[in-house]
Amino acid sequence: MVTKNYEPFLLTPGPLTTSLTTKQAMLRDWGSRDAAFIQINREVRDRLVALAGGGEAFTCVPVQGSGTFAVEAMVATFLPRDGKLLILINGAYGHRIAKICDYLDRDYVTYETAENTPPDPAEVDAILDGDAAISHVAIIHCETTSGILNPVAEVAAVVAKRNRRLLVDSMSAFGALEIDVAALPCDALAASSNKCIEGAPGMGFVICRTETLAAAKGNAHSLSLDLQDQWSAMEKNAQWRFTPPTHVVAAFHQALAEHADEGGVAGRGGRYRRNCEILISGMKALGFEPLLPAALQAPIIVTFHMPVDPSFDFQVFYDRLAEQGYVIYPGKLTVADSFRIGCIGRIDETVIQGALSAMEKTLEDMGVRQRGPAAA
Amino acid sequence: MVTKNYEPFLLTPGPLTTSLTTKQAMLRDWGSRDAAFIQINREVRDRLVALAGGGEAFTCVPVQGSGTFAVEAMVATFLPRDGKLLILINGAYGHRIAKICDYLDRDYVTYETAENTPPDPAEVDAILDGDAAISHVAIIHCETTSGILNPVAEVAAVVAKRNRRLLVDSMSAFGALEIDVAALPCDALAASSNKCIEGAPGMGFVICRTETLAAAKGNAHSLSLDLQDQWSAMEKNAQWRFTPPTHVVAAFHQALAEHADEGGVAGRGGRYRRNCEILISGMKALGFEPLLPAALQAPIIVTFHMPVDPSFDFQVFYDRLAEQGYVIYPGKLTVADSFRIGCIGRIDETVIQGALSAMEKTLEDMGVRQRGPAAA
Repeated sequence: MVTKNYEPFLLTPGPLTTSLTTKQAMLRDWGSRDAAFIQINREVRDRLVALAGGGEAFTCVPVQGSGTFAVEAMVATFLPRDGKLLILINGAYGHRIAKICDYLDRDYVTYETAENTPPDPAEVDAILDGDAAISHVAIIHCETTSGILNPVAEVAAVVAKRNRRLLVDSMSAFGALEIDVAALPCDALAASSNKCIEGAPGMGFVICRTETLAAAKGNAHSLSLDLQDQWSAMEKNAQWRFTPPTHVVAAFHQALAEHADEGGVAGRGGRYRRNCEILISGMKALGFEPLLPAALQAPIIVTFHMPVDPSFDFQVFYDRLAEQGYVIYPGKLTVADSFRIGCIGRIDETVIQGALSAMEKTLEDMGVRQRGPAAA
Repeated sequence: MVTKNYEPFLLTPGPLTTSLTTKQAMLRDWGSRDAAFIQINREVRDRLVALAGGGEAFTCVPVQGSGTFAVEAMVATFLPRDGKLLILINGAYGHRIAKICDYLDRDYVTYETAENTPPDPAEVDAILDGDAAISHVAIIHCETTSGILNPVAEVAAVVAKRNRRLLVDSMSAFGALEIDVAALPCDALAASSNKCIEGAPGMGFVICRTETLAAAKGNAHSLSLDLQDQWSAMEKNAQWRFTPPTHVVAAFHQALAEHADEGGVAGRGGRYRRNCEILISGMKALGFEPLLPAALQAPIIVTFHMPVDPSFDFQVFYDRLAEQGYVIYPGKLTVADSFRIGCIGRIDETVIQGALSAMEKTLEDMGVRQRGPAAA
């Protein structure tokens, strides 16, 4: 067997395939307290606020680490120690916010729906009506456990009507799906460098209402994850308090320029939607069945039911596709045996077509005839 | 004026100048849950334990973020909630551990000496003798506030004799100064990717006693910074719990190979010692006075007194050196007005000589005659 050693396409929820020019931005070392780097940092923050429709009332606070670090920092900084959080859960990332609250010892309740079911805004309204102690609501924009698009705008309207505050985990959606933090409204939105902006992993960021952030002093449980302290220091000298991932920030700066060149959220989201449509129709033609109906499917990552055919073995399927240059993703569902294929990153319909051809060939080699979740 | 747009040398405590081959390792995207990346991750962890003399009883837990994230994770995971920490302070990084304990609401006392004075092991012994509640001691290996080398081995011996546990912040020293975690002994040692191993910034790591780590469940205050939980997950599937900075990890893997090629700690430390000697003798010849006597100076970063000559302006000096390709570092001392020049990173004596020439020319251009801290 010839092992192909070219770089595979990453059909995952991230880290993703990025452009060569984005990676090449990492070929330089930057002094983290030098004027040249400070300017890059300033531009990154300004662009992110603009992308989120933030305007004057919002700011952007970067944080080292993965998306979870940003979400934990957001919850810890914006939920007061005597606050109470309503967490809307329909997958692993909702559960993760509950776990964060357990660590933080903050009060919370959950409203959980099945992994293929979005939260009902009317139910959120009823919960808020029934519990005056709830001060904040957290929602996952696109829950990558299933790939479901949650009704952020509808929930935001209910939360605002009830005079509570909204925190949005937009990790896998930000940059590809329109969101306007001021119009929603929300207090804070968390995302990371290595999703739809197509940068390298290593930093998260929270776009948030400056006034609320300024009042959040003393809320955080952690020096490293205190967004209020980070923002307060950055306002003074435009520097990160602690060593930033300089190369990752420089790559993200380049990725943001390429995002703008592609037409911003509309352009980026348009390409992902085409990827998603071609993927789903191609997979259906191969006999696979997606978990979600089209109306609930975000153009980020698609969950497919695992074939029942006994000759199908996911690890073999995964390995053979990886050998052919396509890295797919295991499932995370609790309700059904499944696997996932991402539509995001620097990939287009040619790549999706290539992946579909590789899957067709692999299934034939494996002798998998029955590709749906149940016998036809 | 011609603006030089080549990349300057970073004579700082990090991020540092790294090799081109280390940066080139970031030109590929890795699936964070793919076998190829998992193998890189495994090799990085094994090499780090070996570098620290850890042996079978120790493991290495990586953590996303800067060095401070790793130190906070170490303190939070290894200091039980009912423990008490003695913090040895002679600079900003000692104070930072106290600040971390304030956030964590853990009990602590400090033993502070001046920034140019190492802690006295006999005094540590007396403090431990007088306070049975102290369970752990934290020490900074090289305090980059001044560049002082602290007596880690002597303090470790006292801590062991008194049956307390030691936590070491070896951020700026690890990889250049010999340290043997098993022989010291210590429970845990924290460092990061972008110091003496010469990788890119974006990850820290803690080398620690596996048995102690396994017993540390429930200590941490933060999901993201819980080393016990990260280790426990990594033992199961060799993966990071949350998205790792894949490019930074790949660069670090390459940097570790280059560290070994240079002769490991002895080779790397030897080059830094030569850099340091040439820097100090050259600066003395220019009229500058280092803060520390040779016996206390670690070969990492050197603090110099600010010249008293009224024609000296640090920002002008800094900017003109940066234009010539040398980024130096501001001072952080509270006891004296100072600035710092680093000896670490992918630089050798030729670079140091170049920096000295640039400084000589700049001082002449600025008309700075009196370069010591006081009139001769």
